[in-house]
Formats: sequence, structure tokens, C-alpha cells
Amino acid sequence: MEPPCKQPRISAQSTPKDVSELVTPCYIGYKSVIQRNSERMLQRAKQLGCQLRPHMKTHKTIQGGVLATDGTKRCITVSTLAEAEFYADAGFEDICYAVPITAEKLPRAAQLHERCLFHVCVDHPQAVEALCQSKANKPWSVFLMVDCGYGRDGVDVKDPTSVQLAQRLASSKGTRLAGLYTHGGHSYDASQGIEAVRAVAQQEAEAVAAFARTLRGKPYCLEVPIVGVGSTPTCSNPPNQFPSEVTEMHPGNYIYYDTMQQALGSCSEEDIAVRVLTRVIGAYERRNLLLVDMGWTACSKQGEDQNFGRLEGHPELKVVGLKQEAGLISSRDGSPIDFAQFPLGTLLRLEPYHSCAHTKQHDKY
Amino acid sequence: MEPPCKQPRISAQSTPKDVSELVTPCYIGYKSVIQRNSERMLQRAKQLGCQLRPHMKTHKTIQGGVLATDGTKRCITVSTLAEAEFYADAGFEDICYAVPITAEKLPRAAQLHERCLFHVCVDHPQAVEALCQSKANKPWSVFLMVDCGYGRDGVDVKDPTSVQLAQRLASSKGTRLAGLYTHGGHSYDASQGIEAVRAVAQQEAEAVAAFARTLRGKPYCLEVPIVGVGSTPTCSNPPNQFPSEVTEMHPGNYIYYDTMQQALGSCSEEDIAVRVLTRVIGAYERRNLLLVDMGWTACSKQGEDQNFGRLEGHPELKVVGLKQEAGLISSRDGSPIDFAQFPLGTLLRLEPYHSCAHTKQHDKY
Repeated sequence: MEPPCKQPRISAQSTPKDVSELVTPCYIGYKSVIQRNSERMLQRAKQLGCQLRPHMKTHKTIQGGVLATDGTKRCITVSTLAEAEFYADAGFEDICYAVPITAEKLPRAAQLHERCLFHVCVDHPQAVEALCQSKANKPWSVFLMVDCGYGRDGVDVKDPTSVQLAQRLASSKGTRLAGLYTHGGHSYDASQGIEAVRAVAQQEAEAVAAFARTLRGKPYCLEVPIVGVGSTPTCSNPPNQFPSEVTEMHPGNYIYYDTMQQALGSCSEEDIAVRVLTRVIGAYERRNLLLVDMGWTACSKQGEDQNFGRLEGHPELKVVGLKQEAGLISSRDGSPIDFAQFPLGTLLRLEPYHSCAHTKQHDKY
Repeated sequence: MEPPCKQPRISAQSTPKDVSELVTPCYIGYKSVIQRNSERMLQRAKQLGCQLRPHMKTHKTIQGGVLATDGTKRCITVSTLAEAEFYADAGFEDICYAVPITAEKLPRAAQLHERCLFHVCVDHPQAVEALCQSKANKPWSVFLMVDCGYGRDGVDVKDPTSVQLAQRLASSKGTRLAGLYTHGGHSYDASQGIEAVRAVAQQEAEAVAAFARTLRGKPYCLEVPIVGVGSTPTCSNPPNQFPSEVTEMHPGNYIYYDTMQQALGSCSEEDIAVRVLTRVIGAYERRNLLLVDMGWTACSKQGEDQNFGRLEGHPELKVVGLKQEAGLISSRDGSPIDFAQFPLGTLLRLEPYHSCAHTKQHDKY
């Protein structure tokens, strides 16, 4: 599969005079909001005394990468080798591929490793051995992934074999230990509000910091240059201070935000930088439904209880169904829609529930 | 947005010697199964005495279109203007754009109308007027969409204004009534099995046939050349006989099928023609989880109760979570996974829950 990031998205679109000229459904982003979100996160990292290693997976654009790195094009996180190649081709440096690497991906990764400062991630002895035994011209720069409670990937800090993996990476000729990488993804489950998110942020940082102390301390005395934390909720509502061991944060979604992040207290509505633009193509008074030309191909079926996002400026309306190329809108409270307000062709803007997923559906914006 | 159909998918991929050479995650299709599914539906349409107007929205490939039309490249259904242009460019003819058209899309539709036999669909007076008043060089060929109980789009056959719309299309210089188009999409809710699907199929056909009789009969005496029905469940389990008025069926998903269709009785497991190919990239005994390089970007979050599809040959396993670029697999019944069976790099094949959605996520296969 070739991911859309193979073509830069923003520049791929000739700028129309007005949104009303756009063919719908389409995806639009507000550059000023994207810039503000980027600057705020850069500022926050500076205040916390750590390096921002922004994740590119949400936008997958060169322009977004330039904004997120404050123009330096250095120190980014990616989630696929195709993204890594895309950014390396554009002159980006210091790229962390933040998914556990496996043997069959090493030949492709080796090319990136030759071209630029490139880091891989591991959390399993088989992957560590594959790296140690691979015939790369220079040692691999390797992050050991740490599970800070999310339970997706990463080693168990309480398991003694985790220390052995770090030792193996530090001692092998074929590898050097770049540091530790963790992702507090369980912050997305912190539905009890900002304080719950802050608690996850604290736990995320403490878990990886404690493991760094263990590795740096006796009897292991390993060098652990980088200790990275981050998810957009935890980086948007971080603890007032990180443990001194933490050197980096790597959020991604913050550049766009979405209604899910707003619900988690990560942002306010005016910080949501993207919209799916759609038009009314049907109106059915008898069924109290509007039909729009935005289906799940233009949107995303992600969203619990039909929470597919928010129709900007229309709190009375709700997307109640998404088919492949069409969506159904009704009133939020079941009261009759004022159909005179929505003639065929009326433009509506959806604030996405999950901008990563919505962005994936579009090749341009 | 530019849909993937802008590039033909099958031919875009150089055929590897073996699936083990494929970069994962990727999407694979079994040509023999696709051919068999295509032939069976062509055969079924013939037995029912109607024309098959296959929907292209699931595969969006030239090769699929050629197979589905038995090599004629005539009489197809599409769900976007981009698809219509894609197939017209490839020499396809008699293309029905089966989404209600609105005024702002007419200039683009007019170009298709000039190039080939092209049909548009309407179900609203505003759209009908836009067509009647548009300055096309030849009359638009227009299907009136009929709601047969699905409740997404289409006119209400009990509403007298529906007849007036048909009359307006038949009498206006700018339009001619191509016929009636309905989609029994509520067949997807027929979870009580094949007989429930057949009942929907019967209702779908009866509803549109009855409306055709009304329009053809006195006092209206309208010509209604085409009467089309279809969804993959209802076309896979149609009534033994259609009402004589029905002339066409337009299913789409049947070319690939998926586990949702299997659950509806539309197909058996061996009829599912596509797979998402993925590799194990993490193994966590403590959490009884395998991590694979298939996230929702390679798959789809569609599927109720974490029913993201079936892992071929591994009934004991279940996809329990999908992140952006990674998926989590555990045992179906909670018993410990035999991790020795799944070293890192192990290839797994997912039979998709909804092949339309899974296909959308890939630019190649």
C-alpha cells in the first residue's frame, strides 16, 4: 500500500478564491489555527524544558512538519517507513520510527539509516537480535519502547528481562541505545476530565523516568540519552513539571485537534483546525432528515454513539448516519428541522471527531 | 479530494512471486474468487431476466469493472463523479451516478453527459428544476430515486408530489425519465437470516414495481424504461421471481464480499475474495496480546463489538483493537495465546468485516 503521504497534501491543492468554489466533499484546514496550535506546543515544550519531537502521523504533510518543528525540519516522529522516506526526501533529519520494527522491515529501514539520523524502536528480544545481527554499515540508533500503563506496546518496567534488552542494545556493536520511548495512550480513556488526564501524564512520565533511573544507576550504569513521553492529551495538559529524566515529548494530533480532544480538555472549539466541507444533496421532511455528500469515505465512522463530530454553527443538528458516499443528518433533540434553512447545495462544515482518521480519507486539502 | 479510483489499483502493483515478499500491511485479492463472484451474479441476473448494472464503488478498478460487466464495459453504477470520469476515461458506457445530484455538480456532470451515455439521479423538486433549467446540449437522462423502505434517499411512493416529479422529468425539454432507481439498504439490518433478507428483497422489488405501474398506468401513462433494484444482500438472496416491472439489479459489494455479508447469508467464507495481509510486530505474554502492523489505516474501524473481521485460519484469535498503524490481537475466549506459534514477522490474513471500507484504505492491491 502507498500511503497518501507520498504526495504532499497542502501544496497539491490550487487555492480557490472561496470555499464555495470547492468540490465537496473536501477537507479544509485553517492555517492560522494550525500555526497557533504548533506554536503553543513548541512553547509548552520549552517551558517544560524538553525537546518537542512532533508526530507527523496526523497531517503527514511537509508544511505541517515545518510548522511543527519551528522551521528546523529536525527531530520528528513517524508511524510508517513510507512517512520516514517522505520526510527524509524533503530534507528532514533525526526521524524516529515509533512502531516496533521487525526483521523483514530492516532492509528498507537500513536505507533511511544510511541517509539521515534515523531511529528505530523495539520492545522484543527477537527484534533486538535481528538488529544486532543485521549487517548495517553503522550501529542502529534504537529506542527501547516502554509500557507506561497504556498496554499497547513497550516493555514491562517491572520485568528484569527489560533491563537485559537495554543492556544488549547498549553493548552490541550493531546497536546503540538512543533512549526510551513511551506513549501514554490511555490518556484517551481519561473521560473524567483534565485532572484525570494530568494523572495519566504524571504516571506516564514517572514510569519511564523511573526505568531510566534504573538503567542509569548501579549496577547497570547505562547511557540513556533520550527519554521521551507523549500523547496529545497528556502533552496538552502536562504535569506542571516533568521528572528531570524526561527530555522529549512527541504529541501529534495537537496540530489539528478535534472534538474528541476537546472532550478530553486538550483544546477548545476554536483550536480545531480542520473541517470536512459538505453540501446538502437531499431533504426529507417526512423522515426529518437531510442527506449530505459526506459519507465515511470523506469522514470516518469513528466516534461512539454516532458521535461523528460537530456541525459547525448548527448545534441543533447531528450526523446520525454515514454511508459510503452520503451522510444523514437529523436534529439533535428530534424536533423538526427548519428545512427552509437548508436548500439543496447548502454548505455545512463538520468538525471531526478524530482528525487523524478524517485526514486519512483525503488525498488533498 | 481525489479518490483512489484515479489510479487503477490492480495494475498499479507489480506482481510479487509470493505473498511473503509483500510489504505489510497490504491488501490482497484472489482473482479466481473475484471472477467466480462476478460470474455468479451475472448468471443470477440472467436467471431473473434482468440486466446487471454492477456498482463499482467497492473495488473502483477497471479490471473489476470489466469482470463485473462480462467484458462489455457497459451498464454500470458509480457513487461519485470522479468514479464516473475514471470509468468513462477507460471507455465504459451507460454509467449511472446513483447519488442525488445537485445544481453545483451539474457543470461537471454535463461533461460526462457529452462524452457518453450517462444517467443522473434525483429525488427532490429543487434538483429536478436545476436539471430542467440547465442549458445542456441534449436532455439529461434521469432516474427518479425511490425509497423502498431503507429511508436514506428516494421519494415517498405514497406522496402524490412524487408522481409530479416523474411527470416533470418526462415532460421537460431538458430531461427524459430513464426510469426508477431504488436501493434496499435495510437488507443490512436483516440479522434474522436469509428469509429476512428475502423479505426485504421482495419488499424492495414490490415497492418500486408498484410505483412503476402507477406511473405507466392511467391517468399518467408515463414511459418508465428502466426499473432497478439492488443491494448485495438482496441480490445474493433475491426472491425466486421479480415483479415483471423490474428490469435491472445493481449490487456492488458481491465482487469481494466480506464477513458482514457472510453473516447476512450473502456468501460463504470461501467467497470472500480479499484479505488485509499483516505481520506480527509485537508479542506480550503478560497481556496475552499480539501486535500487528495493521491499524485502522490499513483496515477499518467499522464492525460492531470489535468485530473487525476474521483472522483466516485462526478461529482462536480476535482483533481486539485498532490504532492508527497497529492492531492488537488476543484470544477469542481469553485463554493464553500459543506465542511460540507467532514469532515476530508471522504473516496473518484478515478477512474484512466490510470490504468497501477496507478497500478505501488502500491505493494498491
